[in-house]
Parts: sequence; C-alpha cells; structure tokens
Amino acid sequence: MPAPNLPFSTAEYQRRLAAVRDAMAKRDIDVLFVEDPSNMAWVTGYDGWSFYVHQGVVISHTDDPVWWGRSQDANGAVRTVWMDDAHVTSYPDNYVQSTERHPMQTLAAMLRDRGYGNKRIGLELENYYFSAKAYLTLQADLPNADLVDATALVNWQRGVKSAEEIAFMRKAARISEAIVDLVVERCEPGLAKNELVADILATAVKGVGDDWGDYAAIVPLLPSGPDAAAPHLTWDGRPFETGHATFFEIAGCYRRYHAPFCRTVFLGKPPQTLRDAEAALVEGLEAGLDAARAGNRACDIYNALAAPLARAGIERGARAGYPIGLSYPPDWGERTISIRAEDETVLKPGMTFHFMPGLWMKDWGLEITESILITEQGPAETFCHRPRKLFVKD
Amino acid sequence: MPAPNLPFSTAEYQRRLAAVRDAMAKRDIDVLFVEDPSNMAWVTGYDGWSFYVHQGVVISHTDDPVWWGRSQDANGAVRTVWMDDAHVTSYPDNYVQSTERHPMQTLAAMLRDRGYGNKRIGLELENYYFSAKAYLTLQADLPNADLVDATALVNWQRGVKSAEEIAFMRKAARISEAIVDLVVERCEPGLAKNELVADILATAVKGVGDDWGDYAAIVPLLPSGPDAAAPHLTWDGRPFETGHATFFEIAGCYRRYHAPFCRTVFLGKPPQTLRDAEAALVEGLEAGLDAARAGNRACDIYNALAAPLARAGIERGARAGYPIGLSYPPDWGERTISIRAEDETVLKPGMTFHFMPGLWMKDWGLEITESILITEQGPAETFCHRPRKLFVKD
Repeated sequence: MPAPNLPFSTAEYQRRLAAVRDAMAKRDIDVLFVEDPSNMAWVTGYDGWSFYVHQGVVISHTDDPVWWGRSQDANGAVRTVWMDDAHVTSYPDNYVQSTERHPMQTLAAMLRDRGYGNKRIGLELENYYFSAKAYLTLQADLPNADLVDATALVNWQRGVKSAEEIAFMRKAARISEAIVDLVVERCEPGLAKNELVADILATAVKGVGDDWGDYAAIVPLLPSGPDAAAPHLTWDGRPFETGHATFFEIAGCYRRYHAPFCRTVFLGKPPQTLRDAEAALVEGLEAGLDAARAGNRACDIYNALAAPLARAGIERGARAGYPIGLSYPPDWGERTISIRAEDETVLKPGMTFHFMPGLWMKDWGLEITESILITEQGPAETFCHRPRKLFVKD
Repeated sequence: MPAPNLPFSTAEYQRRLAAVRDAMAKRDIDVLFVEDPSNMAWVTGYDGWSFYVHQGVVISHTDDPVWWGRSQDANGAVRTVWMDDAHVTSYPDNYVQSTERHPMQTLAAMLRDRGYGNKRIGLELENYYFSAKAYLTLQADLPNADLVDATALVNWQRGVKSAEEIAFMRKAARISEAIVDLVVERCEPGLAKNELVADILATAVKGVGDDWGDYAAIVPLLPSGPDAAAPHLTWDGRPFETGHATFFEIAGCYRRYHAPFCRTVFLGKPPQTLRDAEAALVEGLEAGLDAARAGNRACDIYNALAAPLARAGIERGARAGYPIGLSYPPDWGERTISIRAEDETVLKPGMTFHFMPGLWMKDWGLEITESILITEQGPAETFCHRPRKLFVKD
C-alpha cells in the first residue's frame, strides 16, 4: 500500500522517475542501483535513519522501483514509499555488520532473480555508504553483468526543482531566518556556546507556524575568533568572548529540504580588517547574485564574486557554493555543480544553490551566505531575507 | 603544535597508537589508512564535521600518524590533533566533488612520496565514506603497493575502554538520564512530536552541570503506535495520541562518547499484549545483564535474553546489541561484535555495549534498553539508572 503521508504528489514522483529513466537510457543503463539516501528519498519517498546499514533502490525501465534493505527497516519502507508492498524487499538481520556475509550478496541474488544478472547495471561508485566492499561483492556475485559507474546520475536530475520542491525550500528558509534571528539576539559575551546551540536546535525543530522542523544534514557550525579559520568545527562549552567574530553556519530543514544560511556575529568593536573583508564580501555577493542568471554559467557567479575580493587582497582557495535541496547527513549539498572557476555548467531556472563564499583566513573567519533560486529572468532570488552584513554587538 | 584542548592524556593516545600498531604487525601491514571519522578521532583527536569529503589518517610503525584532508579542514586538524603541524597534510579544494580529479590521487602521491608506494597498505574497504571509487583510484595510482582489507582493524582496538573513556561515558549517561526524565514528564496526548524533539535536543546539548552535550551520532527516533513497528523513523509534527506506545531511542553524548538509552511511554491503558511483552522483555534484559560477564561470550547475552521472550511467544529476528563509545554519524555502534546467536566473541572487562533488544512487531514496538559495562567480576553494570519498565501515563 502506498504510504499515507507522502510529501509529494504522484505526478511529482512520476516526473522524477521519468527523468532518471531518460538519463539511464542516454547511457544505455538497464538497471540502476542507488544507495545514496537522498536519491532513494527523492525517487521513492523513503525516509528513515537507516542509512548506517546497506540499503538502496533498484530502478529499471519497466517495473516500479524496488526498495531493498534490512528486514526491520522494511517496516519503515512500507510506511514511507509510494510503491506497493511487493516492491519492498529485505535481507535477514544476520547480514548486518557480519564478517561472514555481506548484504550485497542478497542484492545480487535479487537482481539475478529478476533477470538482471546479465544486464548493464549502474552503480554509485563515488558515494557515502556504498563501500568498496559493496562493489567488490557485487562484482563477485554478478559475474555476467556489466557494472558501470553511474555516480551522480540521479543527483543531476535533482538540480532543477519543481514548484512543489521550491515551496518546501521556502518553508525551510523561514526556519533558517528564525534561527539567525535567535542567534543575533542571544549571542553575547559569557554565554556558553552549547547553551546557544541548544536553542538553535530547538528553534530548528519547532519550526515556524504549522511547518515543523526536520533535522538538518549538518549540525550547527559556530567557531569563534581564531578557530573560525576552520570551517567545520562544531561546539563546546566555552563562552563567547568580546573581541571575537563567530560565524553561524546553519540550515532550516522542512521534510528533508534545506535552506542553508550563514551569518557572522562580532562581539565588541570589529577590527578594520574585518570591516574591509565584510565590504568586499558583500560587494562580491551582490555581484554574484546578479551573475546568477539563467543562461550564465556556474563560474560566472564565482568570477563575479572573486573580483571585489581580489581588489581587497583576499584570495579564496575554496569553491563558493553548491546545489541544495533534499538531503541526508553527512552533507546538504547535491554534489554535482560547484560554483568555481572551472565549472561551466549552464544555469537553468529552478536550480537552487547555497552561494557560500566563506572566508577562512589564517586567524579569523567570516561567513555571509545566501540560499538562492535561479529565476526565469533577472538575478537570482534569495530564499532568506535578512540583512547581508556582519552583525555587530558592541 | 599539538591541540590545546585534547580530550585525552598523551598516555591514552600512545596506548591507542600502540594497540593499532600491534594489530597491524600481526597482519604484516606496513601502513594503515583510516577514513572512518571515529577511528580518526580515536587515534589522533581530530574532531570536525568534515567527513562529507575524503579525509583520513595514515598510520605507520615509525612516524607519528599523518592527518590528510581538504585544505580548508587542515585548519581544523591543527586545532584538534595531538601531532605537530608537519603531520597535517592537505589537498587543494578543486579536488572536492570534481569529475576530473579524485582526492585519492593526492593520497596516493603522498604515500609514494613517503616511500610507501611498494608497501603492504591496509584499507577500510567496508566503511562509510571510503567509497568504491576511492578504492579504485588508489589501486590505479599505487600499482606497486599491496592493498589489503583492514576493515575494522582500528574498531576492534576500541572495544575495551580505558578509565578515561569510561569516565566520558558516565558523563554521557547523566545526559541520557536527563533526556529520559524529560520525555517521561512531557510526553502527553496532543503534544506535537517535533515540540518534544526540540526539548530533547536542547536537553542533550545543554548537558548536565559543567558537562556540555555534544551531538549524538543518530538523531532521536520516536515512532508511535503502529509506526513503532519500524525502528528507524524520525519525527513529524503530528501529536502524541492516547492508546499509543512511543519508544524513545536516544543517547546522551559527551565529547563524542555515547550512552544510548531507550524507554517506551504508553499514553492511556496499555493492552495486555504489551504488558506481557514488557514482562518478558524485562526478564530477558535481567537475564542478559547477568550473562554479560567477563569470560562469557556475546551470544550468551543473546541466548539469556531469548529464552523468556520465546516463552512469551516473541520471536526477534534482529541482533540485541553492539559495542558503543566514540562515534560520528551515521551510527553510534562500533561495528565489531554483535550480540547475536552466532557471535562467540569473549567478553572482557572494560567492554561497553548498547544492550538493545528492541521489539518491532507487526503493529507495535517496545524498546527498553541499557548501555552496559563489562566488569572484572559479576554481572554487567548499567551506565544509566532509571526504572527498567514501560512508562505508563494514564
């Protein structure tokens, strides 16, 4: 029985499946196995924290997708996917983290049983959760199949968002704004960092109005002062201090859809270096937003951003953004396009990005970012609406 | 410069490194590459949410471990690892999620530069984050090396906890107790599920006293009524209802050390089926705790649990627990021992497990679990101290 509480319409799931099949056909792929939990959810609706064991979805050109996973998680699958229960299959629990058996032996058997044993089968070779051992096991157990790399095949279909998806991202953005408002209000010298994180997480999950908050694919990141040179530190129990900038890298999340949004708070009087960096960064963001138009390329955003930063003597080594939407840990990016000098992907209406030109310098950091939507005409629209600046609390 | 804020003593890190080297020597492994973030942290102290890109630690028999990762994350590494800065190496940002380059090309180059190009190198083939493509890239770029599967080599060294680690787990257990107390107090008909999750997360991160809370490797799981048949559903905005059991699968976390702890709350008057299951489960838990003694085997715990459940007509397919301690998403288990009929691993003092005999039946679920410590003599000690029962709010 299809799940009663599906986030999207039947037409939306059919659109997605058709897009995946088109992409498979272009590469002569008969059968695709996706283990990426974001891809699984996007195609079938499956939702659960079970991606720490092997699971996936088998997509063919003729039959509905088949969910495959651990026996106890089949109970979650029948409750969350749009396919009927005959399309939920599972393997016994003693395959989990066993040294004698591998779950992929059961996947290979299922593929052979369905007549796919000698087909051209696409696999996500570069993906979290699809391990090297998983690949070697399939190779051994599907000797007559042609196993080909289909990394990011589904991810690429996720790039242009439907109206239903954009509506979810707008809800997520309201949650992101609530978090940033909280942070700007509450951050002050002497407050222990974990106390503020407690409030951030509570705000994120309470949501806004009737729109309950889901867990983001990354926990809040909020390093202060010299530690803000490092983009991915989490928190501890030390207090915020006068004289430090703290960036807050957060995302509201609505039914797995994210709107990442970063702002920086300075306690005290910021040094001129930081003020100069803020001015250049904001100028770069605005130039980038203007360049983020349908028909332009990803690198045009990057180059527009880079010019004012270069004039201010700031060299960024890192990319300046990535596509966003539905995601599961450990990353809220879609892992296709990168906003960087060498990426010439043409922007299309409905694409959504986290425009993320974080500055992580030797002994300070500054993040002012925007989640954006490429529109039919004109510059990108930002999902969130808060001042694009360094917040100073003196 | 070694990090200023290391969680553990130098002696503790040296103990860990020596244990890993011994295990490497027993398998004639010259060099070990670990990508598992839990293993990285356990050996070096590295802490950051950067495991969504390739990174790892290279361990040899002679030199200090070498951290390797994305350039921007090297800033986080020098702030969190015990090795000096010369042992932090990185790759340029344009290797991240590139279709032209793979970060493992730079790891292979680094290994060749250090003279390891023709050595026997251990890899974690069955691990989150070490992708199939990572393995294929290393194979191509290290043609003279002997690449061998060293899955879980480090994980097995983590099994017996030091006094320093046990002290962290006791702090985590105080947080777990605070969460369960909150849940039992606040869960009531009409309360939206996400509202309670907001409080759970806030309680988890506030911590207890001076002991700030870290993020757990799994988000709270709390399905209700028939949905509790599925162990890994998260939450939504619907209200708790009279007549439903909800299990709460949570873990307090102190500096990445976990003490998972599950209790079930029934709103209203529980049916006799559930009361009978509770009685059998509590009897099984107590029998299992008594069997969880140094010198016994993992399967002895499982069998002790299974007997009273079988008498009550309850058949569990799933394993009944796993080792716990330091962890990063997506799992708080150590992925070595499983408490199941076929696992004959001998229990040793200092081992710690989540004794987790969840019941996920056709249309209901019940979780009453304990995090336990194997002691020198006598039955296992539980980390948490709360009634071992179904909590009923009528």
